[in-house]
Amino acid sequence: MKVPEKLRAFLNKENRFFISTHINPEGDALGSSIALSMAMESIGKKTVVYGRDIVPEFYWFLPGHERFRNSTFNLQPSTFNLILLDCNDPERAGLEDIKFPYSAVIDHHETEKGFGDIKWIEPKAPATGIMVFYIIKELGIKLTKDIATNLYAAIAIDTGTFRYNNTTPDVLRVGAELIAAGADPGSISEGLYETWSENRFRLLIKALNTLEITDNVAIAVVTREMYRETGAGPEDTENFSNFPRMMKSIRVSALFREIEDDYWKVSLRSKGEVNVAKIAELFDGGGHRNAAGYKVKADLKTAKEALLKTLEQ
Amino acid sequence: MKVPEKLRAFLNKENRFFISTHINPEGDALGSSIALSMAMESIGKKTVVYGRDIVPEFYWFLPGHERFRNSTFNLQPSTFNLILLDCNDPERAGLEDIKFPYSAVIDHHETEKGFGDIKWIEPKAPATGIMVFYIIKELGIKLTKDIATNLYAAIAIDTGTFRYNNTTPDVLRVGAELIAAGADPGSISEGLYETWSENRFRLLIKALNTLEITDNVAIAVVTREMYRETGAGPEDTENFSNFPRMMKSIRVSALFREIEDDYWKVSLRSKGEVNVAKIAELFDGGGHRNAAGYKVKADLKTAKEALLKTLEQ
Repeated sequence: MKVPEKLRAFLNKENRFFISTHINPEGDALGSSIALSMAMESIGKKTVVYGRDIVPEFYWFLPGHERFRNSTFNLQPSTFNLILLDCNDPERAGLEDIKFPYSAVIDHHETEKGFGDIKWIEPKAPATGIMVFYIIKELGIKLTKDIATNLYAAIAIDTGTFRYNNTTPDVLRVGAELIAAGADPGSISEGLYETWSENRFRLLIKALNTLEITDNVAIAVVTREMYRETGAGPEDTENFSNFPRMMKSIRVSALFREIEDDYWKVSLRSKGEVNVAKIAELFDGGGHRNAAGYKVKADLKTAKEALLKTLEQ
Repeated sequence: MKVPEKLRAFLNKENRFFISTHINPEGDALGSSIALSMAMESIGKKTVVYGRDIVPEFYWFLPGHERFRNSTFNLQPSTFNLILLDCNDPERAGLEDIKFPYSAVIDHHETEKGFGDIKWIEPKAPATGIMVFYIIKELGIKLTKDIATNLYAAIAIDTGTFRYNNTTPDVLRVGAELIAAGADPGSISEGLYETWSENRFRLLIKALNTLEITDNVAIAVVTREMYRETGAGPEDTENFSNFPRMMKSIRVSALFREIEDDYWKVSLRSKGEVNVAKIAELFDGGGHRNAAGYKVKADLKTAKEALLKTLEQ
C-alpha cells in the first residue's frame, strides 16, 4: 500500500488538522482517528478530533478516546484542514454545514461522492487503521504504545481479529509490528469482546430463546418488553445476529428488533456467497454482502414470513 | 526459536517416523501431526500418524485428517522412530506399552517425565504448530497449501485466533507466511468456530438459561436431561464456560456438567490474574491459570456452594 505523494506533502506542510469520522463510530473509525491525532501531534502539529456521536462506553479502553469532541463550539473549524477518516462524505460525519479550506479523505470504503481535495481510497484495505499505519511509517513518526494500541484495535475490529477473509499476510505483518511497538493483544481482545454488561448478556439469552430455524435460516427476536425486563437497550443488540452463524447449517441469520408497535429493524448476517445486501435492498435497506439490514412495518409474523419467502427465491 | 541440531540431524537421517500426539486431541495436536507427516513425506520419508482417539468431526475440515489411525494393528511400530507431538509422555498418547528404538519429543508444555532420546520443549511457544513450522523451514521443505492450513489451524486454536496474550509478533509473522503459502484465514475460522450442530447450539441456550451470577462468578449447569432434550452430548459442552466471560464484571466462569447422580464435572475459566488451577487443585483437579477443572461428588447446591466459598477465600 502506497501513501499518495500529495497526501504525504499535505500532512508534512500543513499545521492544523480537523480529524473527523463517521457517525455511529466503531473501532476502526475511532482507533484510526485517535492514532492519527497522536501521531501528528508528536511532530508538532495541532489537531482536533471531532465525532458527532459520543464514543460508546465499550471503546473507552482505547487510550486517548477523550480526544473526541462532540461539538464544534468555539473550535473555528474553518481555520483547520479537514481529514475525513473511514468515510468519504462530510454528511456521514455530520459536517455538511462546515466549510473547510482544504480537505483530505482517507477511507477503505468504495467512494461515492467524490468529496475531497485529496482522496486516498483503498477499497482493498481491510481497515482504515492499516492506511493510517502506513502514513505514520511514511512520515517517519515513532509508533508509541498508545498509537499502536489504537491501530491494533482498529484493524482487529474490521478483520474480526484476523478471522475474516480480509486477513492478508500484510495485515498480520502490520499486527506483528504493532505488538512489537507495545500493543497488547490480550487486553485489546478483552476490551473488544469481554466488556459486556450483565444486562446485555441477559438480553442475549432472551433473544436466543426466541430462536427459530427454518431450513438454513435462523431468526431471533428482541422486543421492547425484553429491554424493560433486562435494563438493556437497542445499542446492546449489536452483534447478536452473529451468534446463530456458529451453526454449520445456518447460511443466513436474522435479528428482528422491535422499534415500535408493528415496526421492526432487521439485521441480516450471512455466510459465504449468500448476498444479504440484495435481500435488504428489496425491503429498501442495504449493506454489504454478508451484513445488511432494513426496516419493515408489519406484525412480527408477517414480517418473518416476508423475509423467509424472499430468501427462498 | 531454534530447532536443536540433534533433532534436525535425526529428521534428516532417519526414514521411518511414527508420529503421535495426546488423547482427546485438539487443533494444535492434530494440525501439527498432519503437517509434520505431510512435510516429511514430501522429502521421501515414510510416516505413520497415530492417535488413540478418533479425530473429532469438527476437525474434519483439516486436509489430511484421514492420515490419523486409531490402531497400531499391523503397523509394527517398533520398526519406526517415535515423534511425540504436543505432549511429552507416551502415556498421554496411549503408547505406554510400545517400545520404539528411538524417540523425539516436540512439545510446548512444561516437561514432567523426561521421556525421549531427543527433547525439544519450548514452554514459551504458543503452539506446537509453530515449532513444526520452524522444523519445516529449517529442513528447507516447501510449505504447501495443505501444510500451511494445518499449521495455521494449530496456531489459531492455541492463541484463540490471535486473541490471547501468547500472540507475539513472531506468531503473527508466522501466520502471515502461512497465509502467503495458501492458508485461508476465513475458511479456517469458519471451520473452527462456525461448525456447531443445531443440537449443540440448543444445548448452549439451555445452559445459558441456568446462569447464576454471584459477585464476579458466573455458574451455568448442563444436566443429563438437557442432553436427552437436545440430542447433544458431553463433548458438545466444550467452550461453553467461555461465554459468560464476555461480561466485564465476571472474573470466574464455571460450568457444572452432570456425569451421574450427584456427580459433577466442573470447568473453570478465569480472566487475568485469577488462578483457577489453584482452586481446582483444592478439589483434586488441575489445569492452567485461566482454564482448569475438577470433579466433585455432591448434590448440585452443595457443589456450587463449595466452589463459591473456596473462591471467596
